[in-house]
Amino acid sequence: MTRTAPPASPDDPRTLRRPAAETAPRRGRPRDAARDRAILDATLAVLTESGYRALTTAAVAARAGVSTATLYRRWSSKDELVIAAAATHIEDVRTQPDTGTLEGDLRVLLRDKAAALTGEAGRLMQALVGEAAQNTALADALTAAFLEPVHRRVGEAVRRAAERGQIDSVPDADLLGAVVVGPLMSRFLLMPRPDQVDAATAQATADRFLPFALRAVGAG
Amino acid sequence: MTRTAPPASPDDPRTLRRPAAETAPRRGRPRDAARDRAILDATLAVLTESGYRALTTAAVAARAGVSTATLYRRWSSKDELVIAAAATHIEDVRTQPDTGTLEGDLRVLLRDKAAALTGEAGRLMQALVGEAAQNTALADALTAAFLEPVHRRVGEAVRRAAERGQIDSVPDADLLGAVVVGPLMSRFLLMPRPDQVDAATAQATADRFLPFALRAVGAG
Repeated sequence: MTRTAPPASPDDPRTLRRPAAETAPRRGRPRDAARDRAILDATLAVLTESGYRALTTAAVAARAGVSTATLYRRWSSKDELVIAAAATHIEDVRTQPDTGTLEGDLRVLLRDKAAALTGEAGRLMQALVGEAAQNTALADALTAAFLEPVHRRVGEAVRRAAERGQIDSVPDADLLGAVVVGPLMSRFLLMPRPDQVDAATAQATADRFLPFALRAVGAG
Repeated sequence: MTRTAPPASPDDPRTLRRPAAETAPRRGRPRDAARDRAILDATLAVLTESGYRALTTAAVAARAGVSTATLYRRWSSKDELVIAAAATHIEDVRTQPDTGTLEGDLRVLLRDKAAALTGEAGRLMQALVGEAAQNTALADALTAAFLEPVHRRVGEAVRRAAERGQIDSVPDADLLGAVVVGPLMSRFLLMPRPDQVDAATAQATADRFLPFALRAVGAG
């Protein structure tokens, strides 16, 4: 959340990870990455222990050993803070690598998404989804930060495959993200205790969904 | 939640809608369907207004015009009450009709699921999913009441299609439910305000996902 850095382009993955960064420029401050990180870690700890509703910026500040004024200089609202903290633990918004094949592209993407939906990240996402049901601003921010980037990645991978002639172009392309990633969400987002799923299991599950995803987009 | 009815068989859809009904037999009471319904409607109203955390059985009883003792004679815990109330509004657990074709079967199923994820039912499901993140008993009950029945329906439809020779039998059949229904969950469960999606839009969205589901299970 560096206020002095040059503005990121819309395609820069940092933009995706920090949805509120460019909405409200504020007074410059020397960068203090360690303190930022301590605040975000404290946010995650309080969220995991107490849930969204019970989280207060005062509790986060106390836990991180900073003043609430310091916290508010970096994040102007509880929602902004929570989303920034979630982004540090949810790794599914990075740029899609071009592996050269649709199968390779979707394998990487599904593995990333499975990782984001399990472990502490998965538990956190469950809590945020529940809160989003009653908090439209948070729902919009989560959609922009975590759902849309993944859907873009899917769309790009499928478009490249069609350009290479590997598959026919797909009608209803706006549904592709949900088609490819939705099954993993169904598997992990509703399960009790996704934090108890280890990384190897998450990856193996992603790989089992891959053939279905390939057939669904026309590469059977 | 009729205590005097004969026990339902495990395949009876009533069993699926009333997950806790057979776990704790209690003293017989004359059936009072209208009063039961008033309590469940009050539960939904309080849930929608205040969310799960803020809901108390006292508030529900007051709104329904009954004593908390009356409420507890029917439902022995807040979780049991909430799940029973949700079941009255979520229509995705009924028995899968056999339409004679895989396309027909999956069309009905996807439309049912889309209806369950939108409108008031959808908003409620969002709130429950969020609470389930911190409540393993509720997560287990939701999985048993709403996820497993749909997955069974998908499995049966695909098995019938394989028996008719319409498709090859599918490996990793345990994933079929998530493959077919997950995209709709991805579409609606994370969206802001699914209660504002009308029934016609929900059905049209289900129909757009149908070709992807058919290809995914090998009927391209």
